[in-house]
Amino acid sequence: MTSLRGVLPITLTPFTEDGAVDEGSIDTLVEDYLGAGAHGLTILGIMGEAAKLLDEERERVLRRYVGTTAGRVPVVAGVSARATHMALDYARRAEDAGAAAVMLAPPENTKNLDLVFEHFRRVAEAVSVPVVVQDEPVNTGVTMPAPFLVRLLEEIEGCRYLKLEETPTLPKITAVRKAVTSPVGIFGGLGGVYLYEELLRGADGIMTGFGFPQVLVGTYEKFVAGDRMGAQQYFFRHLPLIRYEAQLGVGGVTIRKQVFARRGAISSPHARFPAPPVDDVTLAELDDLIAAVGL
Amino acid sequence: MTSLRGVLPITLTPFTEDGAVDEGSIDTLVEDYLGAGAHGLTILGIMGEAAKLLDEERERVLRRYVGTTAGRVPVVAGVSARATHMALDYARRAEDAGAAAVMLAPPENTKNLDLVFEHFRRVAEAVSVPVVVQDEPVNTGVTMPAPFLVRLLEEIEGCRYLKLEETPTLPKITAVRKAVTSPVGIFGGLGGVYLYEELLRGADGIMTGFGFPQVLVGTYEKFVAGDRMGAQQYFFRHLPLIRYEAQLGVGGVTIRKQVFARRGAISSPHARFPAPPVDDVTLAELDDLIAAVGL
Amino acid sequence: MTSLRGVLPITLTPFTEDGAVDEGSIDTLVEDYLGAGAHGLTILGIMGEAAKLLDEERERVLRRYVGTTAGRVPVVAGVSARATHMALDYARRAEDAGAAAVMLAPPENTKNLDLVFEHFRRVAEAVSVPVVVQDEPVNTGVTMPAPFLVRLLEEIEGCRYLKLEETPTLPKITAVRKAVTSPVGIFGGLGGVYLYEELLRGADGIMTGFGFPQVLVGTYEKFVAGDRMGAQQYFFRHLPLIRYEAQLGVGGVTIRKQVFARRGAISSPHARFPAPPVDDVTLAELDDLIAAVGL
Amino acid sequence: MTSLRGVLPITLTPFTEDGAVDEGSIDTLVEDYLGAGAHGLTILGIMGEAAKLLDEERERVLRRYVGTTAGRVPVVAGVSARATHMALDYARRAEDAGAAAVMLAPPENTKNLDLVFEHFRRVAEAVSVPVVVQDEPVNTGVTMPAPFLVRLLEEIEGCRYLKLEETPTLPKITAVRKAVTSPVGIFGGLGGVYLYEELLRGADGIMTGFGFPQVLVGTYEKFVAGDRMGAQQYFFRHLPLIRYEAQLGVGGVTIRKQVFARRGAISSPHARFPAPPVDDVTLAELDDLIAAVGL
Repeated sequence: MTSLRGVLPITLTPFTEDGAVDEGSIDTLVEDYLGAGAHGLTILGIMGEAAKLLDEERERVLRRYVGTTAGRVPVVAGVSARATHMALDYARRAEDAGAAAVMLAPPENTKNLDLVFEHFRRVAEAVSVPVVVQDEPVNTGVTMPAPFLVRLLEEIEGCRYLKLEETPTLPKITAVRKAVTSPVGIFGGLGGVYLYEELLRGADGIMTGFGFPQVLVGTYEKFVAGDRMGAQQYFFRHLPLIRYEAQLGVGGVTIRKQVFARRGAISSPHARFPAPPVDDVTLAELDDLIAAVGL
Repeated sequence: MTSLRGVLPITLTPFTEDGAVDEGSIDTLVEDYLGAGAHGLTILGIMGEAAKLLDEERERVLRRYVGTTAGRVPVVAGVSARATHMALDYARRAEDAGAAAVMLAPPENTKNLDLVFEHFRRVAEAVSVPVVVQDEPVNTGVTMPAPFLVRLLEEIEGCRYLKLEETPTLPKITAVRKAVTSPVGIFGGLGGVYLYEELLRGADGIMTGFGFPQVLVGTYEKFVAGDRMGAQQYFFRHLPLIRYEAQLGVGGVTIRKQVFARRGAISSPHARFPAPPVDDVTLAELDDLIAAVGL
Repeated sequence: MTSLRGVLPITLTPFTEDGAVDEGSIDTLVEDYLGAGAHGLTILGIMGEAAKLLDEERERVLRRYVGTTAGRVPVVAGVSARATHMALDYARRAEDAGAAAVMLAPPENTKNLDLVFEHFRRVAEAVSVPVVVQDEPVNTGVTMPAPFLVRLLEEIEGCRYLKLEETPTLPKITAVRKAVTSPVGIFGGLGGVYLYEELLRGADGIMTGFGFPQVLVGTYEKFVAGDRMGAQQYFFRHLPLIRYEAQLGVGGVTIRKQVFARRGAISSPHARFPAPPVDDVTLAELDDLIAAVGL
Repeated sequence: MTSLRGVLPITLTPFTEDGAVDEGSIDTLVEDYLGAGAHGLTILGIMGEAAKLLDEERERVLRRYVGTTAGRVPVVAGVSARATHMALDYARRAEDAGAAAVMLAPPENTKNLDLVFEHFRRVAEAVSVPVVVQDEPVNTGVTMPAPFLVRLLEEIEGCRYLKLEETPTLPKITAVRKAVTSPVGIFGGLGGVYLYEELLRGADGIMTGFGFPQVLVGTYEKFVAGDRMGAQQYFFRHLPLIRYEAQLGVGGVTIRKQVFARRGAISSPHARFPAPPVDDVTLAELDDLIAAVGL
């Protein structure tokens, strides 16, 4: 039924030092993610600075990611936008480029849920790839209660996945899992801070931007292999680092780019302005934590 | 000193019934605005559904508006965006297309005013046309106190205009006017509901989307001709209608497009989804009010 | 059916110059409201600075208002609070003191509407006086769509009135009026700026803090007497002033107290800190407008 | 210099099953906190449901807490309120009851920082005990940048402590610590999730509601004894549980009361309605985690 599962990192969009899209770094980045065992890639999300890209840049990022991945894992493309017209355009381009699915959040500040439903319906009906419903109240200003999410997943044929980001994710996973009758893939988020419990609650994986995807993969693989104790211990061992990165929220892109740049996965840590700056102490603490958890 | 003054309507972006940008209607719309006596045009603002346009559409709207206006009045182009990189691109394109100025709001939810200042500085320094600082707390989530606005206008050479939208605009006009030492053009907004008092406070004009710009022009012309009493009476006479449209806020685009479509200024009232729907009673009330004020 | 109707001003809570509750001014204020023809009083609302009162002060204000009014008109008492426990206490005290109804908004930031429903149910069942459901999204952070308001009014016996404050009020009045089958009293708000149209849409009156209640009363009386044209003309004549006060929103309490203090209805314009200050120009403009509309 | 330091838990306000303040449970709760090694108590904070208490209940909670603690550790009393008048009353009562300090957040939604400054000044000058400035943007809607916090701490004599709650706390601790020249006590928060790093950055302790204060105390004691490695290891060992509780945010009060009730520190887990409900799976997961970390 569901073909997306496991760890699908929210990928970075690398830039050169002077701020241009760095397609070459997309290539090295893809190898970094796949080398970490990622089961898919989620491109053009918030961590991918999608809202900071011109349409032409977005298209180049999309095509490069899909081309470089070359079918080795499925690529999910973010297509969220203020207007249904734009989301439709992004979704069609994603499908055309070869994305396996599109990820869609409600249009910002659209508190009328009837309009939100219609937005999802129109996009889902316009493409043949499935839609990942993205629950993102902080960035969209739209709160979608569990019963509304269930409606989206049950009544709109193309809406076959759910990616949660509202704190706390755990009771929402349980509430949706209990209520849906169709096979639906549910993904956690929140930087991976609750991955083990998300899996226990019935999540099929996670989409998040944590800088060391192999840790999420390791936890997931142990868990689905039936080794819960091993999964928990492995997860807890890395939790200090996961937690540290998670504190940075949206500002996290700045520091995560530092992490990826240090290991050569991207050529520059440049993030598009305005992005919250990271202080030197944070970088030092991060290095200490990476060492402390043995990465 | 300042070359922008008077009534510069926030213009609509017309679409065909099926949702495509309707360039032909831009032509008729420009004649409608100029026929009403507009002293300039403010394109690609919130009322122009700018955030609902693909970049390619934005470019076409920009070029068509500037081309059709053909220098008869100055065209101010909205260039607000989430990233400085995008705003820079929009601003350069606006200048290249022949816009007389660009209008820029803070990047959304950037509550760190140091980052906001830097955003304005970078854009202002990248173009040779002046920047209209747009104070728009409701849509951006960024509150800019009067002293910060004064800093932008005094310390960044290109920031030469201010367009206010925070309720109430009146004390802010007075506060900024008192504090700035350089010649700065200040424009009101809020649908025109406080135009007379904005002028009394020292505003140089207004940028707003009210469906009958001739009313704003008439008020302004009488006022600057020294006929305050006449300006007030004329303004008060039309106030019931101005007030009625203003209630609709962002949803106002839907009903304003009805107004312009009825008089043939645009071919279709289509607004991009999701836009708040307008009920029939509202349209009927609007017709009654238009008649009641004698338009 | 419904016993509340007409104009029920949101009343001020007067303070002495040093900030203490001024019970004597409540007496003069009540005579001012009743002299203006008010059909009831709505005490302890936002304009009454209810959230800025200690419980002991709240109780004194309640008892003095009800006592002084002495049954000449119904008194509605605001009982909104963060906890159901508190709202219950306030509601029981209001009933005990002789209030004709209580007005209740959702607890702040309670976005789960099931909890909001339960809050209304518990309060409504604890008192024998009816509950006015207060729709106040700006101050509570809770958006209640029309169908939810209808549920409250239909399913909770005590919820028999609705006071709207979300912009725009007009389509919501029509939506609720169409959907409810029980006799329900609907009241407008928004400073009176849309009173005439609210009545046209089926409102039974208005609860708002406008400084010249006789204008609202005059509009209402003409309207219910069947003189729509007269009501409209009378309303439009005073609209410049109504609009001016309305710009001030919550800050309006500061200036409204100036208005009432000037005509001797209260001894001091003191408002509790922090309240947005009012500049001198605003006071002068207000005086001009009062004169301009002939009050 | 500073006399507050270490772990000062944000204490619960216990209720009986039927929702009344349970003074007897305050006694057992105080012994629980002190038994865990708490260096002080922070009463009437958000976790203490202070905004859900009537004034009379608030007074009883205050007096009982201070009385029972009987000077064994300092008691900090929350005095945040919408009006300066109320905060002054709460602060004077706190001082009168014997509180060692008062904790004050900005009045809600007061985005004008000049008004916020004046609010702090008036309260600080009215009492002889020091003021803990509470940085709480999520619940107050007021963002206080580091330079503004420094101004409060430098220019208002009574403002001698700072309690941070904005995510991330770490760079703000560093920024404030660098900028202040007077001896100022800084406390972290966020459920304890970043306690170790907060101490590294120069925090003097923490005020938070985590259900096992001994873990925070143990971390703190090792840290100030110079055993950083031991502190870190001890902290990391308990991090899975700290993180789990922290997910619940404001809803956390519901589950934390379960934790304290299970070990007999309070007679009932009753939290005041409306409080987010906790699902059974959450309670089970919590029990597992408590066992997993060896508590």
